[in-house]
Amino acid sequence: MHIRVIVPVIGDDLLDRVIEEVQGWAGPGTTVDAVSLKRGTASIESEYDEALAAPGILDRIVEAKVDGVDGVFVTCFGDPGVHAAREIIDVPVVGGYEPAMLTAMSFGEKIGIVTVLPNVLPMLHSLSRRYGIDNRVGAIRVIDLPVLGLEDRQTMVDRLYEQSLDAIESNDADVLVLGCTGMLGVVQELMNRLTEAGHRVPVVDPTGAAITWLEGSHRLGIFPSRSTYMPPPAKERSI
Amino acid sequence: MHIRVIVPVIGDDLLDRVIEEVQGWAGPGTTVDAVSLKRGTASIESEYDEALAAPGILDRIVEAKVDGVDGVFVTCFGDPGVHAAREIIDVPVVGGYEPAMLTAMSFGEKIGIVTVLPNVLPMLHSLSRRYGIDNRVGAIRVIDLPVLGLEDRQTMVDRLYEQSLDAIESNDADVLVLGCTGMLGVVQELMNRLTEAGHRVPVVDPTGAAITWLEGSHRLGIFPSRSTYMPPPAKERSI
Amino acid sequence: MHIRVIVPVIGDDLLDRVIEEVQGWAGPGTTVDAVSLKRGTASIESEYDEALAAPGILDRIVEAKVDGVDGVFVTCFGDPGVHAAREIIDVPVVGGYEPAMLTAMSFGEKIGIVTVLPNVLPMLHSLSRRYGIDNRVGAIRVIDLPVLGLEDRQTMVDRLYEQSLDAIESNDADVLVLGCTGMLGVVQELMNRLTEAGHRVPVVDPTGAAITWLEGSHRLGIFPSRSTYMPPPAKERSI
Amino acid sequence: MHIRVIVPVIGDDLLDRVIEEVQGWAGPGTTVDAVSLKRGTASIESEYDEALAAPGILDRIVEAKVDGVDGVFVTCFGDPGVHAAREIIDVPVVGGYEPAMLTAMSFGEKIGIVTVLPNVLPMLHSLSRRYGIDNRVGAIRVIDLPVLGLEDRQTMVDRLYEQSLDAIESNDADVLVLGCTGMLGVVQELMNRLTEAGHRVPVVDPTGAAITWLEGSHRLGIFPSRSTYMPPPAKERSI
Amino acid sequence: MHIRVIVPVIGDDLLDRVIEEVQGWAGPGTTVDAVSLKRGTASIESEYDEALAAPGILDRIVEAKVDGVDGVFVTCFGDPGVHAAREIIDVPVVGGYEPAMLTAMSFGEKIGIVTVLPNVLPMLHSLSRRYGIDNRVGAIRVIDLPVLGLEDRQTMVDRLYEQSLDAIESNDADVLVLGCTGMLGVVQELMNRLTEAGHRVPVVDPTGAAITWLEGSHRLGIFPSRSTYMPPPAKERSI
Amino acid sequence: MHIRVIVPVIGDDLLDRVIEEVQGWAGPGTTVDAVSLKRGTASIESEYDEALAAPGILDRIVEAKVDGVDGVFVTCFGDPGVHAAREIIDVPVVGGYEPAMLTAMSFGEKIGIVTVLPNVLPMLHSLSRRYGIDNRVGAIRVIDLPVLGLEDRQTMVDRLYEQSLDAIESNDADVLVLGCTGMLGVVQELMNRLTEAGHRVPVVDPTGAAITWLEGSHRLGIFPSRSTYMPPPAKERSI
Repeated sequence: MHIRVIVPVIGDDLLDRVIEEVQGWAGPGTTVDAVSLKRGTASIESEYDEALAAPGILDRIVEAKVDGVDGVFVTCFGDPGVHAAREIIDVPVVGGYEPAMLTAMSFGEKIGIVTVLPNVLPMLHSLSRRYGIDNRVGAIRVIDLPVLGLEDRQTMVDRLYEQSLDAIESNDADVLVLGCTGMLGVVQELMNRLTEAGHRVPVVDPTGAAITWLEGSHRLGIFPSRSTYMPPPAKERSI
Repeated sequence: MHIRVIVPVIGDDLLDRVIEEVQGWAGPGTTVDAVSLKRGTASIESEYDEALAAPGILDRIVEAKVDGVDGVFVTCFGDPGVHAAREIIDVPVVGGYEPAMLTAMSFGEKIGIVTVLPNVLPMLHSLSRRYGIDNRVGAIRVIDLPVLGLEDRQTMVDRLYEQSLDAIESNDADVLVLGCTGMLGVVQELMNRLTEAGHRVPVVDPTGAAITWLEGSHRLGIFPSRSTYMPPPAKERSI
Repeated sequence: MHIRVIVPVIGDDLLDRVIEEVQGWAGPGTTVDAVSLKRGTASIESEYDEALAAPGILDRIVEAKVDGVDGVFVTCFGDPGVHAAREIIDVPVVGGYEPAMLTAMSFGEKIGIVTVLPNVLPMLHSLSRRYGIDNRVGAIRVIDLPVLGLEDRQTMVDRLYEQSLDAIESNDADVLVLGCTGMLGVVQELMNRLTEAGHRVPVVDPTGAAITWLEGSHRLGIFPSRSTYMPPPAKERSI
Repeated sequence: MHIRVIVPVIGDDLLDRVIEEVQGWAGPGTTVDAVSLKRGTASIESEYDEALAAPGILDRIVEAKVDGVDGVFVTCFGDPGVHAAREIIDVPVVGGYEPAMLTAMSFGEKIGIVTVLPNVLPMLHSLSRRYGIDNRVGAIRVIDLPVLGLEDRQTMVDRLYEQSLDAIESNDADVLVLGCTGMLGVVQELMNRLTEAGHRVPVVDPTGAAITWLEGSHRLGIFPSRSTYMPPPAKERSI
Repeated sequence: MHIRVIVPVIGDDLLDRVIEEVQGWAGPGTTVDAVSLKRGTASIESEYDEALAAPGILDRIVEAKVDGVDGVFVTCFGDPGVHAAREIIDVPVVGGYEPAMLTAMSFGEKIGIVTVLPNVLPMLHSLSRRYGIDNRVGAIRVIDLPVLGLEDRQTMVDRLYEQSLDAIESNDADVLVLGCTGMLGVVQELMNRLTEAGHRVPVVDPTGAAITWLEGSHRLGIFPSRSTYMPPPAKERSI
Repeated sequence: MHIRVIVPVIGDDLLDRVIEEVQGWAGPGTTVDAVSLKRGTASIESEYDEALAAPGILDRIVEAKVDGVDGVFVTCFGDPGVHAAREIIDVPVVGGYEPAMLTAMSFGEKIGIVTVLPNVLPMLHSLSRRYGIDNRVGAIRVIDLPVLGLEDRQTMVDRLYEQSLDAIESNDADVLVLGCTGMLGVVQELMNRLTEAGHRVPVVDPTGAAITWLEGSHRLGIFPSRSTYMPPPAKERSI
């Protein structure tokens, strides 16, 4: 299948890194390409950024439709523009939150999210209620690193480990979800360190979860429900 | 106080009508002005339209902040851009859904929403979960008129009456909320007709609820919580 | 409009103070008067007190109806007699809890209540479930002062500040609600101290919220739903 | 054990009938007596009636405490005064709703309540949320007979049967609860008729459930939790 | 009535102790006998053990039906095989969890469970959701003793006391439930020690709650709903 | 990867058909084998059947562990033995319900399940609460065919279509899930017929969802959380 990754920020710096990561998760027979936004923000850490990013994301959805892709991954944990996108394209579209959280639900009782900054907490709380799964969320922890600070890999991993360990030992988390799609290439190391510490607890990588979700949904032949995601009526739109 | 109404669509046709309506609800000492969007869509009937409208709405929020307004009403029942707006301005900001629904909660057990098209149902269902009030929503009915079709006032009132009556007699609604801010100037007639039919049931006008909500909040001296609506970190944004 | 305040305790000592406070919150064109109870208790700090106060409150509701008031505020955070009152009068009736909590919901994600004594905690927990908003309540804290001890203003403010600060820093509260209508004239000072401490968090005064709620509801022309608050059938009643 | 039944209405007409009924449910070694109210209403069919009945009920609770009874049954389905009563007496106190509903939960998935008048529906809906069991309530049906009309036994049974049958066949009820403690001596006949109609569905009699609940709780040696039902602080009370 | 106790483990060592305990809770006129399993496990501390125990439990249910017992208590807090059993027998069947938890709900706001090992926590969390009462569960604590280690009575009581006290003082529990039916004969001592420590908090013994529940249900003449617990269609079964 | 399918019934008749179906859903590089039970029942249509099937399923789990499989699919919609299985094997284990329902959640607002017999309704209702997703379940419909009657493919498809259509047109379902893993090879035809009828609504095949779920989870390197699914302590077990 053909997966189009939309990196919902401006600038192409991340594209190669993201494609490499996504290909690492993809199965045989899946081709991946990625685009960033022509209009949007340098990173998404608030509902304000999400709102500004959405039109640029939807531009890319329209292109993806024209290009006949089989699935779209908007690589941000806040699922920006995802529900709007489902209204205008007939293939599975996911962000980082929904597939990672739903996947985690079948591996443990309480889900613990470890994310970047306190700024995104309310967004994640209201997403859990929106999706109707808030009674499975045990903890949302932050590592106090801005998205653009995730370049410092060692600090990121160390803080993810500390926060994960504390959430587990406080009995607030049975399965963990990385709360930012920018936390690339650390999930295995994090699981190993937790296992060494005596906690055999799974950690879900949102990028990996999104890609396998899209591959699975594609194989199932399913698509956004038109009674939920109705096609927007034709009208003047200028943006 | 000074209330800025943002009509989240392109084109100025509705402005006079909206200002007139809003002033009808406003209390003494409240001044009202209204703006529409420089970029956006002709109407909002889907999450797609909401997403395209948000940046234009946020442009207007930035202006409102500069103008030092005391409260902002984004006149659409889907609360487009409202949560993002709260991150960047220090005064109360509401859309049509939240104040009308919360107001209705203190007047009856089950809330019935009567809205325009089936397209918006899922949006309203997920809003009710997002706000954590879904166990109080008894019914969401549609009158099958597009927003731009609401010009036909008599048809609108007749269908609102039919749907409201049926929801009440099915025991699905104890208090009604008009599910579109374009349903202007009909709430009193609707309540009268329901009363004549033997149903003394209140109907909440979302425009009226929003204006009185802003006036009340302003007098209470409250503002968006900065632990929920944190100011977006500075970064490059081009849209 | 004409608002009747019912101070649901025996004795007139509080009346002047309450009227002054309420007038401070009321808008232009609102006239306020207040009555206490002919039968009831010296204060309300338990369901037992609430039950003993209710008949005296309903006596005053009957009077208010005769006097043709436009709204009634039963000034107690436990909403004593409020639902019964709505069955016998056609204008908005609120206590302290419902308008303050519903108002708070549009200003932050998690609501923190700071109240007087542990005695009222279960009452507040079950009210939050009764109203269907318990998933938005993040914390209920007590300052361990009896209602009649609130006279010691400085101690009250200091303890409110301590408890509020701790609830915020524990990430249990994004918006605060004063959990007793006897906590008069402190909300602004409390918000200032929290802001100075780096927490720009709104605090809702239940008296102010009730008055603005009544003014808003009055302007909206709404009233208790008769399918929820049905008029009690005629029968012998002797109390 | 010694059970005190409080018939929360004025007038003694029902006492003998109630005592007879209660003794029919009571186990060996249980003695039963009953009192009605010195002040209150002729029946309870609204929150207004409940509020007027509460003080008279609490008078009887104080007496019951002096008399050293082992349990108290306030024989009304709305649980009037029950929570307040638990604050002032150290033995189990129940009304009709709580024991019947909790008992029903272990016999079927969805609980259907069949009660007297629409007036009490909202009261029952909010009780189910207050107790946190609303997701188990499948239907609340009414037979449109006032409490005082239950004397017409045949009409009552016929309507109970019709409503029960319809709730079951609509898949809204797997276990039924009689929603009024005045529906005396009909539960067995109702179960028989439903069984004859091919529906082997249990029906819970609220009086029977209350008595067996009190006997069970007494044998378990439990009492109202003082961290939930704290003793009301001493103060002036005149009612 | 005739109660059959099914001790859902292999080996008869516990039978005499259990019968003695059960008879201590039973009312006059109740006869009790007990059986253990012919196939199963030495104790139940996981869903794995529950699954292995279920067929042996159902063997005993079939026998109980033949023997015409009036009620069955499967003495394990995880309610193993209970729902399956209700499909094949017409009398009340309970385990340890459901009657104890439902009983506790009428004595305090937040229920605290004190159980044996962390292994059973997820099982108890998902049971509370299955039964729809999770919003009443305030805390689940463990004493870190395996079921077979409960022989050391003093250690068990001391740890139950420590955990109960901590749950109460953390405001996480208003009423306690012993989370293992093997915690025999300690509930009174535990309540006494908590009372001495100034906490007048009830503790529910699951064995006592189950027996009184069965006696009450038997007297109510109720049975498992056949629209919830439908008789399994006939088919080949070999196990 | 190597997927072991456990057909949780006795008899090998279904094995070839199931393997063929599963291989149809599996991706490249996935090998599939299947086993049925040595002890169990001819089909699973009740909690009784589930309980009798569980030990035979766990026998096969032990074998699967020895064989070093990478994932296990217990092909029954009631998820029999699945949670117990996760306690004793380190690879993903799913039944039919969990992956299908969680997959459906990202394609539409309200999930509609169409299953075989009314017998399984309560089981499905309580599963939805156990998993904490009941607020997303809009309808559970039955086609009134026993599992063993699904051989009559045309009748099955016709009834699935009727029930699905009705659920959609009643606004009770936005996305459908086939509620029995025996409904093989019909999902595409069902989606086509619904599309022809003007309803572009996805239908999730539980077998397909389980296989793609296992493949995805395997690639994510995750496993059952040991803080939820703790290894059962060693003890005597004879069954």
